[in-house]
Order: sequence, then structure tokens, then C-alpha cells
Amino acid sequence: MIIVMSPGANEQQIDAVVRKVKEYGCEANVSRGVERTIIGAIGDERAINQETIDALSGVEQSMNIVKPYKIVAREWHKENTVVHIKDVPVGGNTVQVIAGPCSVETQPQMDDAARFVREAGCRLMRGGAFKPRTSPYTFQGKGVEGLEMFRKAADAAKLPIVTELMDVRMLDTFMEWDVDAIQIGTRNMQNFDLLKEVGRVDKPVILKRGMSATVSEWLMAAEYIAASGNHNIIFCERGIRTFETYYRNVLDVTAIPVLKKETHLPVIADPSHAGGKAWMVAALSRAAIAAGADGLLVEMHPNPCEAWCDADQALTPQELKSLMADLGGIAKVLGRDI
Amino acid sequence: MIIVMSPGANEQQIDAVVRKVKEYGCEANVSRGVERTIIGAIGDERAINQETIDALSGVEQSMNIVKPYKIVAREWHKENTVVHIKDVPVGGNTVQVIAGPCSVETQPQMDDAARFVREAGCRLMRGGAFKPRTSPYTFQGKGVEGLEMFRKAADAAKLPIVTELMDVRMLDTFMEWDVDAIQIGTRNMQNFDLLKEVGRVDKPVILKRGMSATVSEWLMAAEYIAASGNHNIIFCERGIRTFETYYRNVLDVTAIPVLKKETHLPVIADPSHAGGKAWMVAALSRAAIAAGADGLLVEMHPNPCEAWCDADQALTPQELKSLMADLGGIAKVLGRDI
Amino acid sequence: MIIVMSPGANEQQIDAVVRKVKEYGCEANVSRGVERTIIGAIGDERAINQETIDALSGVEQSMNIVKPYKIVAREWHKENTVVHIKDVPVGGNTVQVIAGPCSVETQPQMDDAARFVREAGCRLMRGGAFKPRTSPYTFQGKGVEGLEMFRKAADAAKLPIVTELMDVRMLDTFMEWDVDAIQIGTRNMQNFDLLKEVGRVDKPVILKRGMSATVSEWLMAAEYIAASGNHNIIFCERGIRTFETYYRNVLDVTAIPVLKKETHLPVIADPSHAGGKAWMVAALSRAAIAAGADGLLVEMHPNPCEAWCDADQALTPQELKSLMADLGGIAKVLGRDI
Amino acid sequence: MIIVMSPGANEQQIDAVVRKVKEYGCEANVSRGVERTIIGAIGDERAINQETIDALSGVEQSMNIVKPYKIVAREWHKENTVVHIKDVPVGGNTVQVIAGPCSVETQPQMDDAARFVREAGCRLMRGGAFKPRTSPYTFQGKGVEGLEMFRKAADAAKLPIVTELMDVRMLDTFMEWDVDAIQIGTRNMQNFDLLKEVGRVDKPVILKRGMSATVSEWLMAAEYIAASGNHNIIFCERGIRTFETYYRNVLDVTAIPVLKKETHLPVIADPSHAGGKAWMVAALSRAAIAAGADGLLVEMHPNPCEAWCDADQALTPQELKSLMADLGGIAKVLGRDI
Repeated sequence: MIIVMSPGANEQQIDAVVRKVKEYGCEANVSRGVERTIIGAIGDERAINQETIDALSGVEQSMNIVKPYKIVAREWHKENTVVHIKDVPVGGNTVQVIAGPCSVETQPQMDDAARFVREAGCRLMRGGAFKPRTSPYTFQGKGVEGLEMFRKAADAAKLPIVTELMDVRMLDTFMEWDVDAIQIGTRNMQNFDLLKEVGRVDKPVILKRGMSATVSEWLMAAEYIAASGNHNIIFCERGIRTFETYYRNVLDVTAIPVLKKETHLPVIADPSHAGGKAWMVAALSRAAIAAGADGLLVEMHPNPCEAWCDADQALTPQELKSLMADLGGIAKVLGRDI
Repeated sequence: MIIVMSPGANEQQIDAVVRKVKEYGCEANVSRGVERTIIGAIGDERAINQETIDALSGVEQSMNIVKPYKIVAREWHKENTVVHIKDVPVGGNTVQVIAGPCSVETQPQMDDAARFVREAGCRLMRGGAFKPRTSPYTFQGKGVEGLEMFRKAADAAKLPIVTELMDVRMLDTFMEWDVDAIQIGTRNMQNFDLLKEVGRVDKPVILKRGMSATVSEWLMAAEYIAASGNHNIIFCERGIRTFETYYRNVLDVTAIPVLKKETHLPVIADPSHAGGKAWMVAALSRAAIAAGADGLLVEMHPNPCEAWCDADQALTPQELKSLMADLGGIAKVLGRDI
Repeated sequence: MIIVMSPGANEQQIDAVVRKVKEYGCEANVSRGVERTIIGAIGDERAINQETIDALSGVEQSMNIVKPYKIVAREWHKENTVVHIKDVPVGGNTVQVIAGPCSVETQPQMDDAARFVREAGCRLMRGGAFKPRTSPYTFQGKGVEGLEMFRKAADAAKLPIVTELMDVRMLDTFMEWDVDAIQIGTRNMQNFDLLKEVGRVDKPVILKRGMSATVSEWLMAAEYIAASGNHNIIFCERGIRTFETYYRNVLDVTAIPVLKKETHLPVIADPSHAGGKAWMVAALSRAAIAAGADGLLVEMHPNPCEAWCDADQALTPQELKSLMADLGGIAKVLGRDI
Repeated sequence: MIIVMSPGANEQQIDAVVRKVKEYGCEANVSRGVERTIIGAIGDERAINQETIDALSGVEQSMNIVKPYKIVAREWHKENTVVHIKDVPVGGNTVQVIAGPCSVETQPQMDDAARFVREAGCRLMRGGAFKPRTSPYTFQGKGVEGLEMFRKAADAAKLPIVTELMDVRMLDTFMEWDVDAIQIGTRNMQNFDLLKEVGRVDKPVILKRGMSATVSEWLMAAEYIAASGNHNIIFCERGIRTFETYYRNVLDVTAIPVLKKETHLPVIADPSHAGGKAWMVAALSRAAIAAGADGLLVEMHPNPCEAWCDADQALTPQELKSLMADLGGIAKVLGRDI
């Protein structure tokens, strides 16, 4: 870490910084310039709390030299990691599309959904049994009953399942129902106790980006899971919050190549939640794969025409099929398949 | 709710919207204009899921007429609600400053802190035993041991205590140690299971704003707590995330008069976390009170000069005293006291 | 326009709104509900200043029914408009890549750049003679001398040229040098006097999005140009400002399908400025084309290895060639060519 | 400037950085660590283009040691600068409130406004003759005729006038009408040619913050004016754009103490544009003064009750009077007067 003192910093203040650096187990190298004194902290700077240093009297600014994340960093693990959801590899040469409805509604809905997911050529299924909802007065998901419906439908179609865990107390139930990949939603990206707990099980975790989380905070959230022992983590970009009001969120495709550079773990994208409208999904899906994503999390509803009349951010089964064809073409340009 | 159809919307699409509105238990009033058809949904529109409506085929946009929050809304409860933390009223004529260190460190630190808080004229004490930290490798708080130290120190100084709850499984422990007000941190503002649980106890809840939460989402988060039975909620503005990099967050003082208009519940501000630097705290504290806040959550460390040398975002005991004097002057301008 | 009055609005307030609506030349339709009164303004609501209505006493909120933009709106002009930069069509079936260096430096640099642009298969060339720079102490561009170098180099390679106009007083000079397309930069998107002036000439205008402009403001900025008479406008998404600090801006690919829906005019993207790093350009370029962009504005420097050593956000000539091949593959998936 | 090379950077890359640093006229000090090599650039680092350095091959990141602004920086000019608008001092002990209508409408309106501004105890008057409007179809201001009305009304009340300049070609007209302070609006904060031109005249400039400009960019925009010779600059915080939709912009009060620390020039705030609603103005005004602002730019309309019925973000004359009394109380707490 490089620490820059303000122009007027006195010897006492410089000494205090040096002492603090040493307390953290690092050496301090003081270099006195004409205008400013600069202190280099040498050693394992991850042990240093940058906020504490910045707050010391006389400190103008500081800069980390080493990245704060370790296990998830590509710097220490050059090759891509392939995470297996049951037997389906994510992060390898094949692009994986995880499809299914937003919410589990009924057994027939899930049975149909599973069949359509399979027919479209997808190998993984999504569906929410527990739903994070802005209002306490709206449908909060089918709960455990939903898990059961989902499991049954997906088993019949031989699809591993991905579903969101919101409450740490539900983790045992998720294990009982043998959920194949646990999704951590955007609102829980920094629910550290939840991260620690999913770090203790042996199921892959799909970690969605907090809607205003920086890439660095996101990597650190993954580091929480990894530090607890579970290295099977998949990042999922799902759109960030900005000033724009035309669409729900802005799918941050730049984050995809950036994450692929910073981490060896797989990166997927959720084009359905980002845009919030079914008609945007195809364009955003193509963009994400073209940017290098290892897969997608896409909403598809088996029968929107009856129940919701083209409703929602969900694709129809036919739209999903057609999207898969396009994505195949784009994957090929990148030397991948689908 | 007013629903505007796109120019080319056909009868089938209009019918589908009407059916959906009726499914939600409302009446639909269709008005056909030259360019567009407009549908008014009449009845309890809180039952209507706006996202579902917006996603219906042929819908261009919709607008809620009624606010989605009920219990916390001033519309239905005109007078200010005063929330008592033990015997200290928050939201009345007296401005309340909740002061104390960011983290519980040692018993002597807490004992000193409590004494200084008292001496400065504050009536409530803050301190973190469980700390949400970006990195899994940094100090995560003293935990239960910290609660014990805090309780002991505050009792000696006769100060009710405010501390953050991160993990729903810790709530019983908080009740055992008789925490006087439970703080929900910015990262947990939409941890809905946690909100529901603190909604079931009889302790006041200080609900910090999510760092990129809209005022509407924040009110709905409070509505979660209220809907579970606990109406003793205090809003705490703590800065929002923006593009600015000079300071940690932007204290959104506009939210203060806006919340006072929208809700009958008390509103306080946290100037320490917002700016992230001790030298900004006085200016931001004055601004918050001048904007109409009912109180503050301020960091003060008993002995920054020895341990951290003017460190941190924490004020010194002397700075806190001096701040209290200034705030008294500003409170007076608004017809309040401190 | 639909205007919702607050619950307590009285007759005087309702009358005032009705009068104001009529002043704007619209009819007012008052509908009194149990909780709230709603006023519909019928007629050409573009004449109504929404901010004035919202500010009237007793008004809670209002909603535009009709889009505020006319000439640029697809609603009134269904087919895609193809804008010709000299003889090169933008917005048709062929994806156009406008390549060249960020700044005009020297005649040999521009000659080489032009040759490489041509060799890579691009049909349009970019280069900055006037540079908007954050600091007054850094290089502000070659100015008119730069225009001359650019014109000469591009003519030899038979490439139409695109360059940025910052100062309205330079427009005549741009016309003298026969600049083929005038670029309006992100900082000038709402420089309304500049927009009006480029609206009076017959050269195509590439209108970059303001770095925090909404899609609606962007469309209205184009409407300024169009309302002055020049309908040859190309939108260019160049990244928006967010809280993320890892990369300069976030390329908003969602804006691409959204603009294609809202306007009949061509939409291109600038992946070089968005990410700010050469290594991100290929991924962002592929994403933009996959999302449906009609072209790109890409930085390429003829000889980065000598002068700047892989420097800058600029691609090397070889990287541009390789990018063009990838983009050809993606264009094909969308039924286009390059 | 400190430049950190990536772990794998080779000698060629290090040499290239050293060469580039020397090209900028600085010395380079290379320090080879175990993991990374760090290069210190010693000399006038303002000459170094950080973006160019960051883009060099093998560079991971860099950090400026010296602030990029000079003339406006408090570092080189410790005492507060008082800027005189005609004979009214801004930035001294007295808080100055610049009041008046958003737009010049008619001569009687301006005459009344001037009288009310005076009666409320304000010493400076504002009013817009040229209005930046999102839509080309709405009122664009009275133009030169408006300047004339404004001048006449203000002269009768002996008030210096402040008005916005949008088009560089209008500067001579502003000088002819002897505008006492030139306002640069939020959309023109980085209209560098306009900044350079107002830097050449001897009138004070009120520089509004770009709605998504960082404090650093804002200081650099002022540096443009100062570098052209005009040091009479007043910063005006007017709210920043965020994700919040309840109010127009977020008044960034943190920027006030931050600017007072970074620059010796006066800092004022515009509470009317920030919130966008008259009912928020008093709270925001108090907050800005409490945070240390040297003054305000406030909208007041002489007769909103007839023409606009409590309309707009403008205060009534009576509200302005009452606000002045509150602000006097707050100014006193800070040892100032009004």
C-alpha cells in the first residue's frame, strides 16, 4: 500500500502512520519529497484496513497495490474453473442457458416448463419458490411446497435445478430437497451471514451482483463464500441501478470481460431481470454471450398466452427456442458451442 | 391505477388487461381516445402487481394513484409518531443524538465512551458488536462478548443502547441482552426475512436506508416491519451511492423533508457513515438537523488520540460536545430543543 | 396527460389545474373518485409543460400519455431511416464501423491510420481535431490544422470523415473543410444552441449520449436538431456514468434495442470511450452489434507500438482487422453483413 | 504520480513507462518489489496525462499525488477569496441570498419581483432570459428583450443581476447590458469554449455543477475559467442526478464542506432546482447554509397566486421573507450574518 501524506503533515502524524502500518504486520518505507511525504507499506497489505489508514490524521490518500481478494482471483489461479451443477459444466467451452419461470406456481406449470426447457436444448432449470418482493402485501412465493413441485418437475425432465435462498434458516431444507445450485439474490449479495453459510455446503452457488455493488465488492462477496470452504461459485450479472427510468436496470456487459480477467470462476448474465421486459431479452442475451458470458439465467413461462397473455419478462417456449438458435451462432463466433 | 395502452393495442389486448384488473379485485373503466385507450382500475389498487400489468401485451405504461404503503403512511395517520427507545422519545420536539464508537473494542473503551456520551448531553448510545465488513479477512466485531461489554458500560451511564442486528438467528440473543433499539443496516434494508422477524418483537427498530434504495422502497421495507406488528420504526438516512468518489456516500438531505411528508414516523441521519471522514461530520450533522431530522447517529471514540490519532470517521469527545452546542442553536431556529 | 390530485385537494385547486390545462389549448376532463380527483388533459399534450402542472397546488403527480418527441419518433415513422455519410449508408442492412485515432497528431499518423482503416474493411474514418479535455493544461487538439491533415489523409484513402464539433463558431470552418459527418460529444448533448446550429446544415450529425442523459432526454436532444431542419441524425451510445470505478463508463447496451424501438434513426455505439481500455473493446464491440447496433465508432491507432507501446484505448491495426472478422460473424447471426 | 505495474510486467514495459514519464518532463524512480514494480514520477505531475499512463502496456494503476487544479486550489491560496458582484461581497462573513424568478416574463413581473427581493433583505437578483429546455417545443426564454426588462427592474431596486449565458455568441450582449454576474448552467459546466470565453471578461462567474460532475471535474472546469484570466468564480451546488425518482435531483450538501476545503473560492447552493418543489426549498436552504454555504440561489415569483396558483418551485414573496429569518438564525450559529 502506498500512503500519501498531506503537504502540511508533521513528524508526529508520519510516525503514527508508520506505527499503524507496523501494527498490521507490515514494514513502512518513508520517502520525504519536497511537497509531500509518501509511505510505502511492505508485506501482506490485505491485513491493512484501508479505511483506518485513510482516516489517520495527515493522510491525504492511499492506494492498494495488491487486490483484496485471494481465492477467487485469477492472479493466483490462471486457468478457468469449471463449476459443475450436478453433471452440467458451467465455465467450460459450452455456453449454458438456465431457463424456467420466475415463480413456481403449480405442478402442471412446472411440468410444462421443464419439458419446454428441455426441448429448447437447455440443460439447467430455474424457478423461484421464495420470492424477494418489495411489498409485504404481494405474493411471496410458494415456499417449501414450491421446492417440492420444482424438484418433481425437473426430475422428470432430468434437469438439475437452480433456486434462490433468502433465509439462512432454510438452508437445511434446501439440502433436503437436494437443490442443485443455490442462487443468492441481488439484495443478499452482502448478507454476510448467508454467504458464510452457503460457503459451508457443497452445492454450487450462483452469486448475483448487488444492484449497486462494485465489481470489487462482488468479488469480495464471493471471497466470503470461498473463505468458508465452498469454491464452486458462479457470478451472475443482473443489471445495475442507474438514473435511467425507461428500463428497470442497466445490464452491465462491461463487467463480463472484467470479471473474466479478475477471476477464474464462471460468469453468467440474467437478461430477464435486467431489462424487465420480454422484448428486450433476446438482444440482451445475445449481447451477454457476445461479451463472453459463460451462460444465462433466462425466464421462460410455459403458457404466458393463456395465463398472462404475452405477459411478464418471461419468454414463450417458442421464443426461447429461437433465442437458443441465435446464441448458438454467436457462441460459434467465439469458438464455443451451446 | 391508470393504464395506458400503446397506440396499436387491439381489442384482445384491452380485454386481457380488463380481465387481469378484475382478477385483482378491481373494476376496470375503459376510455377509448383517438390515439390511445386508457383503462382506469378502480378499487384497492395495492392488490395489483404493477409489474405484471406493465408486462401485459399492448400496455405502454401505468401509474399508481394510491401509495403502496399503508401503516407507515402519513396519509392515514396525520400526527407525528413518537417512538420511545426505553424512556427516550424520538420524533418529538427534542432532537436526539445517538453517539458512540463504531465498534465495541474493550470494556474500558466502552466505559469511557459511555461517560463521554453522557457528558456531551446525549441520551442514547450506539456501538457495533456485529460488523458488516466488505472483506472476510477483516475484524468482524466482538460478537456476543461485545454486547455484554456494551450493556455493562451503558447501564453504568444509564444510557439505552442501539446496536446492529445482521443475522436473524441472533435476535433471541439481542432480546436476552435487552438491546433497547435494533439497528438494521444498509445492506439488510431488503433482507425481508430479517425485517419480518424484527417486526415480531417489541423493540424499536432503526431502519437504515439501503445505499441505493429509493424512498419508496425504503418506506416499503418499513411496511414489512409494520405489517408484522411492530410499529416502532425510525428511519435513518445514511448516504446514498453515486458516481462521486471524493467522499464515501452522498448524505441525501432531501430525503429528510420528503420522509417527514410521507410518513408519521421519526427520521434521523447518520453523518459519520455518509461522509466517511470525521472532518465532514459537523457540517453534515448541522445540515441534517436544519433539514428537519429528528436526531442523529454519530460516531464518537473516547480516545482516538492515543489509539488511532485523530483516526476514523469518529469524533473526539470534545468535538461531540462542541457539535451538540451548534445543534442546539440550529434546533432552536426550528422551534425545537436538544 | 393524466393529472392526479392529492387526497385533500379542494375545488379551487382543481379549477386552477383545469384553467392551466385550457391555457395550453387542451380540454380538461375531471373525474371525481372517492379518494382522489383525476383530471385528463385531452388534445396536443406536447404543448403542456409537465413541470408546471406538477408544481400546481394540490397536484400529486401527472403522467404523459404521448411521447414528447415527434420527428425522431418511430411512432410516426415506422420504417428505419438510412442516413448516408457521403455515400456510405448507416442504418441499413450493413453494419458500419467508423475507425480511426482519438486525436489527429501528425500527417503521417493520419495517412497510415487511413490506410489501415481501409485495409480493415471499414468505410468511414474518425479522428479528433478539437478535443474536450477535463484539464485546461493538457493537449486540446490540433484544431483547424488537424482538420486539414485529416481531410487530406482520408481523401487519399477515399474515406468520408467524422469529427467532433465543440464550438458553434467553428461550424463554418467544418463546412469549408467539408466534414462528412459532425459528431456532437457527450458533454454537448444538451448544448442547445449548438444543436440548433447543426440542425441548420445538411451534414449528418452523430449525437453522442450525455454521460448521464436519459434515453428520453437524448431523443429530445435529437428532436432539437430535427426541429431545426436536419433529419440526418445518428445516435451513438458511449457509456453512462455510474458508481462503478473499475472502468470509465458502463456501455448501456439496453439503450440499443430501446432506441431502435423508439426511433427510426440509426443507432451506433462507441466501445472505446465506454470501457476506456483497449482490452475491453472487442468484447464491447461484439456486444453492441449483437444487441442490434447499426455500427460502431472505434479507436484505432496506426502505430501504438512505437509511440505509445500498446497504449491507450486504441486498437492496433491488426486488432481492428481481427475484430472486423468477429463482427462479421455476429452480423450474420442477425441477418446483416459488414 | 505513483505508477503500479502488473505482476507480470516485463522490462520493456517498465522502460516504456519510464520513457513516457520523462517525455512529460518528470524523473522516474523505479522500485522493484517481490510481486510488483512501482514507478514514482517526480516533478510537475500536472503535465502528465494520467489516462495515457494508465493505458500503457503493463500498467495496473496509477495515483496522482498532486491535485490537478492550481489557481482555484486552497493548497496554494489559504485565505478565503471574497468575490464581489458589483459591490456585494460573496464568500465573506455575510451569507448572500440571490433571489428572483426562474424566467423573465414581463416588465411588471420583474418590477414586482425586484421590489420583493429587496424587501426580503436580499442584495442580489436572479432571473433567466435564456432558458435551457429539454424540449425544443417549449418556451426558450425572452432573450435579449428579457435582459432589458431585467436590467431595468433591478436598477430601479438597486440590485445587481445574475443571469445565465448559454451561447458564447451572446457574451458581447451580456457585456452591453452590463450583467453583473454570469451564470454557467449545469449543462454547460464542461462547455470548454464557453468557459474559456467567460474567463476573458471581468465579470464574476457563477459556475453550476454539472448534474453528474464529480467535485474534481467541477474544480477543473473552474480552472478553465481561471486559466483564461478571470479568478472571480463562485461555485454553485445545484443537485446531482441519482437513481432516486421522488425528487428531481439530490442536493449534495457534502460537496459544500469539501469544496470549502479544496478551494478558496465562494460556494453557494441552489435549493430550488435541486428539489424541484417549492415545499422542499426551505429545508434544503437551511441545510445548505448549515453545511457552510456562502449563499443561495433561490427562486421567488412575485405573484404565483394569480398566474400560477402556488405553482412551480418558486417561493412566494412571503415565504422568501420567512426563509430569510430562519437563515439568519442558522448563520448566527456559524458565526455569520445575513
